[in-house]
Amino acid sequence: MSFFNRHFLDFSHLNKDDIFFLFDKADAFSNCKVFESQESKKSVGLLFLENSTRTICSFELASHDCGYTPLKFDVESSSLKKGESILDTLLTLKAMGLNAFVIRHGLDISLKELSKNVSIPMINAGEGVSGHPTQALLDAFTILKNRKQIASERVLIIGDVKYSRVAQSNLELLTMLGADVAYCGPEELLPENKQVRFKTLKEGMEWASVLMALRPQLERHTGPIFERIKKDFVKNYSLNAERLSHWKSDGVILHPGPFIREQEITSEALLDSRCKIWEQVHNGRLIRRALLGLILGDL
Amino acid sequence: MSFFNRHFLDFSHLNKDDIFFLFDKADAFSNCKVFESQESKKSVGLLFLENSTRTICSFELASHDCGYTPLKFDVESSSLKKGESILDTLLTLKAMGLNAFVIRHGLDISLKELSKNVSIPMINAGEGVSGHPTQALLDAFTILKNRKQIASERVLIIGDVKYSRVAQSNLELLTMLGADVAYCGPEELLPENKQVRFKTLKEGMEWASVLMALRPQLERHTGPIFERIKKDFVKNYSLNAERLSHWKSDGVILHPGPFIREQEITSEALLDSRCKIWEQVHNGRLIRRALLGLILGDL
Amino acid sequence: MSFFNRHFLDFSHLNKDDIFFLFDKADAFSNCKVFESQESKKSVGLLFLENSTRTICSFELASHDCGYTPLKFDVESSSLKKGESILDTLLTLKAMGLNAFVIRHGLDISLKELSKNVSIPMINAGEGVSGHPTQALLDAFTILKNRKQIASERVLIIGDVKYSRVAQSNLELLTMLGADVAYCGPEELLPENKQVRFKTLKEGMEWASVLMALRPQLERHTGPIFERIKKDFVKNYSLNAERLSHWKSDGVILHPGPFIREQEITSEALLDSRCKIWEQVHNGRLIRRALLGLILGDL
Repeated sequence: MSFFNRHFLDFSHLNKDDIFFLFDKADAFSNCKVFESQESKKSVGLLFLENSTRTICSFELASHDCGYTPLKFDVESSSLKKGESILDTLLTLKAMGLNAFVIRHGLDISLKELSKNVSIPMINAGEGVSGHPTQALLDAFTILKNRKQIASERVLIIGDVKYSRVAQSNLELLTMLGADVAYCGPEELLPENKQVRFKTLKEGMEWASVLMALRPQLERHTGPIFERIKKDFVKNYSLNAERLSHWKSDGVILHPGPFIREQEITSEALLDSRCKIWEQVHNGRLIRRALLGLILGDL
Repeated sequence: MSFFNRHFLDFSHLNKDDIFFLFDKADAFSNCKVFESQESKKSVGLLFLENSTRTICSFELASHDCGYTPLKFDVESSSLKKGESILDTLLTLKAMGLNAFVIRHGLDISLKELSKNVSIPMINAGEGVSGHPTQALLDAFTILKNRKQIASERVLIIGDVKYSRVAQSNLELLTMLGADVAYCGPEELLPENKQVRFKTLKEGMEWASVLMALRPQLERHTGPIFERIKKDFVKNYSLNAERLSHWKSDGVILHPGPFIREQEITSEALLDSRCKIWEQVHNGRLIRRALLGLILGDL
Repeated sequence: MSFFNRHFLDFSHLNKDDIFFLFDKADAFSNCKVFESQESKKSVGLLFLENSTRTICSFELASHDCGYTPLKFDVESSSLKKGESILDTLLTLKAMGLNAFVIRHGLDISLKELSKNVSIPMINAGEGVSGHPTQALLDAFTILKNRKQIASERVLIIGDVKYSRVAQSNLELLTMLGADVAYCGPEELLPENKQVRFKTLKEGMEWASVLMALRPQLERHTGPIFERIKKDFVKNYSLNAERLSHWKSDGVILHPGPFIREQEITSEALLDSRCKIWEQVHNGRLIRRALLGLILGDL
């Protein structure tokens, strides 16, 4: 056979019959509807155009858990660098037989608009400041597991709410599920909406059954906003052992990660038994596994 | 057991017996000829030293389709950065038990010369301007599927033929399979060979049964060649709805991708039913699956 | 069903019931102890914060050989870039259900200290100049396979011993296994310890049964140490055909790779039948497979 165990660098060692033999093989895969059959596993494209640890790794593991092949798309070495648009990249990967996309972008590029032209499911893994809905799902799930309910819970989101897509998605989801959401943080870092806000963390904590600390989103600030206020921020809004010692014993502390120790939360506070940060990470894999399975029709 | 569930950071918690116990285990894998047995799946190294979306993703999926493990080699974080040559990297990966290589390089490094020293199959996934044979295979396959033949087809390659490795491989393959190939494009972008060339796209389209548009290969131009002629290029050589409205109803339009919309092809033209660009992508996975399977002796 | 075959970009098309349906599915995975069950394969995190070819690829293949899922952690696009510490990254990935880590770092960050806070096994894949124990294992294994013993072997480590973590780990392991280790190289590149050292390579080779050549570790030198002495280095310490022609016929030549041809070893010397460099690479996969399997309790 002219292909077996040989280099394939050009056509010099091949003839017409070889080529048509290869075409017949390719055609056979096509005829047996390979992409829909059991022969090939379903595959999920992971397109992360912004840094990620938790989200990309848990989607990768969740894909494996579901029996799907994750295809990690390396943006830096892709044709996006040759000027191809994100839409055309998605359409290309869809044509290749991918079954779903997980996509993250640092800017608000309107995944919703994009999705109108993409006929396979797209999952938002973080878009600009507008949303990070799978994070909100795992946060709500963690509240449910620890507080036995979500409705009537009082969730205080602390710190950089304005530039946090996690805060935005949590507001939407928690409100839908009947929880109350309030904010607490320096004025510069709070959004202009009508949510209740507490002047001091002390007052907020008295009200709240759930605390959600946030990392200042330096990469999304329009200037050195945080540098100016950092000292006061740590003094007034950091979750530390002293503050937590006065707080309700059955409360729950969350943080979407990555966290900066001794800034929005102290190392001591991370060891507090009410702190469920690692459980959030664990739940992230479960939630994403369930979501992928439901979307692709296997659950 | 001294290894079970423990860190392995140095030898401080181990003794001679532990080490020889480990060696015995390693030796057992060696004796049962692990690399040749069913125990370990065959693996395919993907070495892309130049950007890629279509080619690398379809080879990755095709490897999975065949039941092989793709090993995506990350050039930027590899020992190539420590001064190791490509040949020594290939020999190293071969020694590790890889069964084939898929390799792309932005320059004409002579994969053919390289392959003389590599005893496992190497597949050219794009080399400088000299060739991209698996793209030509999927192009010819797409012509066959849509035109029911390749011999006697008249394929017009439009635009930056000179700097396109796709054009080069297509010329070789299509000629071997009995098709006629002609060019059409600005003088600066046509190679100096004896292929028929048409002065105007109108004349070329009257002749052709297949149109193949190409992206100007800016990354391979020796200067700002394209910038000077871009306006005229779009005016004279862009595939647009108006031009296509006069063209034969059973023709086939191809583009290897990535394409730049409104430059070599318009968004409207992409929606033309004769445009088989997404089918090319789909066929790329089939062709590469067939090729890998044939080369590794599993088809 | 509200998730099936739909985009998931926000919560606008979902209601409370949809969300709790998803939570039930996620909870089911949790209840059946998915991470401990057979449902999900064990997974191994590969965190390489320094360039690698041999080590990362062989750990990736060894993971597959064991039936584990390797999770290649892309440092450049991770939350490490957002200021997350290595420890918190490890704790995050552990919370996600990874079963072991393989970690490389260019600096001596004290993996030992780090490991005290990480409750799943960590494997050192190269740390600063302090150690690279899996390389030492595969080196000793290669000596054993070729010399039928390790005790009483006389191993001469040649060249940049001072900045080589491979040399350090080999000294520890080979000494434990009863071999004698000596050095030979320019003064600037030898460490200040009490190991025997030979003035000339000629004398060293007369003594040695095993030669281990090393690449000058330019990336770890504190200045242009090597540039000054390169000429003399090649003249006095390069393993070349002439030198080897006088050497014992049953000796073994090793190099951990990557090697720079015509510097510490010549192309001719690489073809010498006593040179076991490719066998070392082959053995690396076996050793790492055995190590992973033992640590995770599957051997």
